[in-house]
Formats: sequence, structure tokens, C-alpha cells
Amino acid sequence: MNVSLLGTGLMGSALAHALLRNGARVTVWNRTATKCAPVAAAGAAVAESARSAVQANPVTIVCLLDYDVVRAVLAECGPLTGRTIVNTATGSPAEATAFAEWIEARGALYLDGAIAAYPEDIGTETSGINYSGSTQAWEALRDLLLPVAAQSRFVGTRPGAANVLDAAMAGAFFNVALGAFHEAASYARAEGVAVAEMRHSLHLWTGKLLELLQEAVDTFETRDYSTDQATLHIYAAAVKSWHESMLHAGQSASLMAANLANLERACAAGYGDMGLFAQIETLSPRSATTTR
Amino acid sequence: MNVSLLGTGLMGSALAHALLRNGARVTVWNRTATKCAPVAAAGAAVAESARSAVQANPVTIVCLLDYDVVRAVLAECGPLTGRTIVNTATGSPAEATAFAEWIEARGALYLDGAIAAYPEDIGTETSGINYSGSTQAWEALRDLLLPVAAQSRFVGTRPGAANVLDAAMAGAFFNVALGAFHEAASYARAEGVAVAEMRHSLHLWTGKLLELLQEAVDTFETRDYSTDQATLHIYAAAVKSWHESMLHAGQSASLMAANLANLERACAAGYGDMGLFAQIETLSPRSATTTR
Repeated sequence: MNVSLLGTGLMGSALAHALLRNGARVTVWNRTATKCAPVAAAGAAVAESARSAVQANPVTIVCLLDYDVVRAVLAECGPLTGRTIVNTATGSPAEATAFAEWIEARGALYLDGAIAAYPEDIGTETSGINYSGSTQAWEALRDLLLPVAAQSRFVGTRPGAANVLDAAMAGAFFNVALGAFHEAASYARAEGVAVAEMRHSLHLWTGKLLELLQEAVDTFETRDYSTDQATLHIYAAAVKSWHESMLHAGQSASLMAANLANLERACAAGYGDMGLFAQIETLSPRSATTTR
Repeated sequence: MNVSLLGTGLMGSALAHALLRNGARVTVWNRTATKCAPVAAAGAAVAESARSAVQANPVTIVCLLDYDVVRAVLAECGPLTGRTIVNTATGSPAEATAFAEWIEARGALYLDGAIAAYPEDIGTETSGINYSGSTQAWEALRDLLLPVAAQSRFVGTRPGAANVLDAAMAGAFFNVALGAFHEAASYARAEGVAVAEMRHSLHLWTGKLLELLQEAVDTFETRDYSTDQATLHIYAAAVKSWHESMLHAGQSASLMAANLANLERACAAGYGDMGLFAQIETLSPRSATTTR
């Protein structure tokens, strides 16, 4: 398959190399042309302008900084009628929605991609790119795109869906979990316990986390929060005690305080005798009246 | 080895069975005597009172509800001189410290144990109990205690150290990470993205989390936070954008807000050009002036 790629930074180059290894004929463009040299050496054609790259092939993958940059570059690329644009810029769901409208108004199909991988993971089993937008584009391109990141998926026709999952998993889950570990380590350090002691239990706790998150997703789907294990009341009491110990040791413990407030809000809303996973029902206050 | 065990609830029974399987001669007591039947059937002797259990053997493991209950029971058990008490009650570091003083004033050695396992995990490779307190007691008992929970460790001579690690890992890290996943799923649901879509990336993200936590512990030890990857400024900007998307979707996003505040506090303190792990230095405000 013939494909063009705009942007040969770290991530763009990783995508280009993976495409080339899988037999695609790739035309690349980068504003600083010298950055194209390694992928050219690997077999890519180098276009003299973004416009000539986009006009060279029916499909263009864009790997530039953000939505504003992508829009500015594509605005100079001539008609897009009948073409397909795949855009991997990082941004919000709202930006993806607005950009999809802009592309579709120019007659092209649009796929929004959110990359959940570091450049060195591209082309391996441990990378994934979530795509959303045009089903037609995904069906036409899946054989091209899957070898680039094995765990890639099409996650919805709303152009913002990929960015929603990115904000949820990379942001709301992963980054907060990392932050939580910092509060844990700061507390241990303040109490004179060597942080090295935490190393031994990392496998144990991340393994348990995977188990519970799988169980959580199952439960979110059924919305049956009854339990014969610890209830939200019991979790809230334990978290309150842990939080007090952290404050006692001079910690800010802000994440722990927010966590306690989330659990107590769920108890106050009547979920105290349900399982831990019931807290999801009280985290979306604006929609609470419509969903219950 | 001969050992006594007070409390044959779910966890106490699991401990008793594991001890028996490993060849210990075990004397048990429980306030409701009928609950001793299964471990008696497995070979345990049943004492008629807590006092006769404690006086039967030089070592007593206590698995009762909390520190107050343990103190009330042991107060009725006669002299403890020359004995060793191992207490697995859940509680705060301060409670462990006070209880160790109480035990030691009665002439016994004290080990405080914090169980990081469910009852069904006891006796398997995926369970651990952290112990702290008397080094002499740990050295004498490690061959008895290790088969009960393979990943058990002695984590410090301060009696509260095991509870500190418990509050840090089970509380400040694990429970907050679980809470964060609820905020993530609530947000995805509010945006019309099926939470089932999150299932596919759980292995990927918990795997990455393990990798980064190991790197974090290494970095906490060296305190060298310089990086050629994303800086705290870059993380704070990404988290700010994710947080705005969550608010836009009507989420409370309290953990995300606390996380953003932690990152911005670290940037404001001058760590913005350092790596993510530098945020640990600004989470302990009371001690900030002494540790830097």
C-alpha cells in the first residue's frame, strides 16, 4: 500500500520505519528536511513539500505536534477530496471533534489516532494506537495500521473517542496512580522506612491491581455492586485511618484526601453497603440525575 | 516448632492451616469455640482459654480484630515474661508503637505483622506479611513464618514500620490507584465510550506501571531527578488538559485535580525541568525545610 507521512520526529520516524518494514511504500515530509534522512535511508521517498506528500498518495498519516499545527500544515496542501487523513496529534476529545469536521468539510475521510506507546515500542507487541472516526477508513486501513502497533483498536465512530480513552487511561488512571505512588513513598520516607522496602512488593501490588481492574470493568458493565467482601463503608474507614496516619507524619496526602472524599460521597449517596466499585456511580455529578 | 494462635476467623484459620501444613504443632483459641473445629480437624490442639493457649507455648501469634481487642485479650493471659508475641492486627503505626511498649513492659519480645494478602493467598507464593519490631524475635521465627507467606520480610526495628508500609502500599498507592480507575471509567462512560474498551489496555497499563514504579524507587534512592524524557512541566501541562476534558464532561475529577495540584506545586518549587519523580520532594511540607 502507498501512504504518505507528515512529520518525522521521534514518533513519526518510528511509524515510518514500522510501515516500511511491513512492505508499505512510504512518502515522507518534514519541515526540517534533514530529519528525513534516516527513513529515506530505510527506503522512504522524500517529498519536497507537505502538499506534494499529501497529493502523492490517497492516504496520509500526520504525526505533528498538535491539532493547530496539523490544521496549519494541511490548509496549505490543496484539495483533500476523496483522500483519507489519519491524525495522531495529542489533544482533547473536543479538538478531535472540531478537527474531524474541518477535514470532512474538505471531502476527506478522517481517523483520529491516540498513541499509547513510546516511540521505541512502535512495531512491537506492547504498543497500541486507539483509532476513532470513520469506520470506512478503519476498514480500509486496518491491515496497514495493525502491524505498526499490535494492540491497536477502533474504539468508536465519534472522532473524540480515542482521545477520551487516552485521557481516561493515560491521564485519569495511569498518571494519578503514579502520583499516588509518590505520596506513598514520601510518607514511608517521612516515617524513616527505606523506600527500597517498597520495591519488593511492586509485583504483588501491580498484579493485584490488574486483577481488581478486570473485576471492576466486569462490574461496571453489569452495575451489580452487591458484595460478600468488604463494603464501601469498610473501605472508607480504612482509608480514613490511613489518611490520618499520613497527616500525622506531616504529609500533604492530597490524593488520599480526595480518595477519601470520593468514598465518603458514595457512602452518603447510599452505596455504603455495596462493594468498592459502586463509587463510579457518584463521580459524575452533572449526569447523576439522568443516569440513576 | 510449638506455637499458639489466638483467633480462628478467616485469616487466623488460614494462618493455622499453613502452620500445620509446614509441620508446626499448633494450639489455637477462639472466643467462639466452634470456629476452631476445622483447624482442630487438621491437627491443631484447642485451648479452653486464651490464657491456657498463651501459657502452652513460648510463641503466640495473635490474629484478632484490632489492637484494642488484642490488648483486652492478652491482659487476661497472665505473665508474658520470656515469651514472644506476634500480632497481625490491622492498625496505625502509632498503635503498633504503643502496643509494642505495652508488650515489652510485660517482658515479652514483640513482632508486629501487617498482612498484604487475602486469606486464600496465605501459604502461596503471592502472599506476604511485613514484620517489624524485635530483630531477635524475627531471627528466631523466620523459618516458622516464611512458609506461611512466601514474600514476607522484616522491614525494620521500629514496631510501626510494617504498618507504615501497609498504609503506603495498600492505602496511599493501591487504594488511590483503584479510585483513579473509577474516575477514568466514569469519564469514559460520560463520554459515551463503552468501559469494555478499557479492558483491552489493562495489561498494557499495569505493565507500564510496574516498570515506572521500579524506575521511581531507583530514582528516589539516588535523588537524581534529571531527565532527557518528559519533564514535570510537560506532565503538568498534559494533566491540566486531561483534567479540563474531564470537567467539560461533567466529572468531579477530584483525584485528577489533586494530582494536578501536586505536579504544579513541584513545578512552583523549582522542579519543573526535572523528571516526574521529583514531585516526591514537595509532598512532605512539614519536613521540606529540613530535608532540602
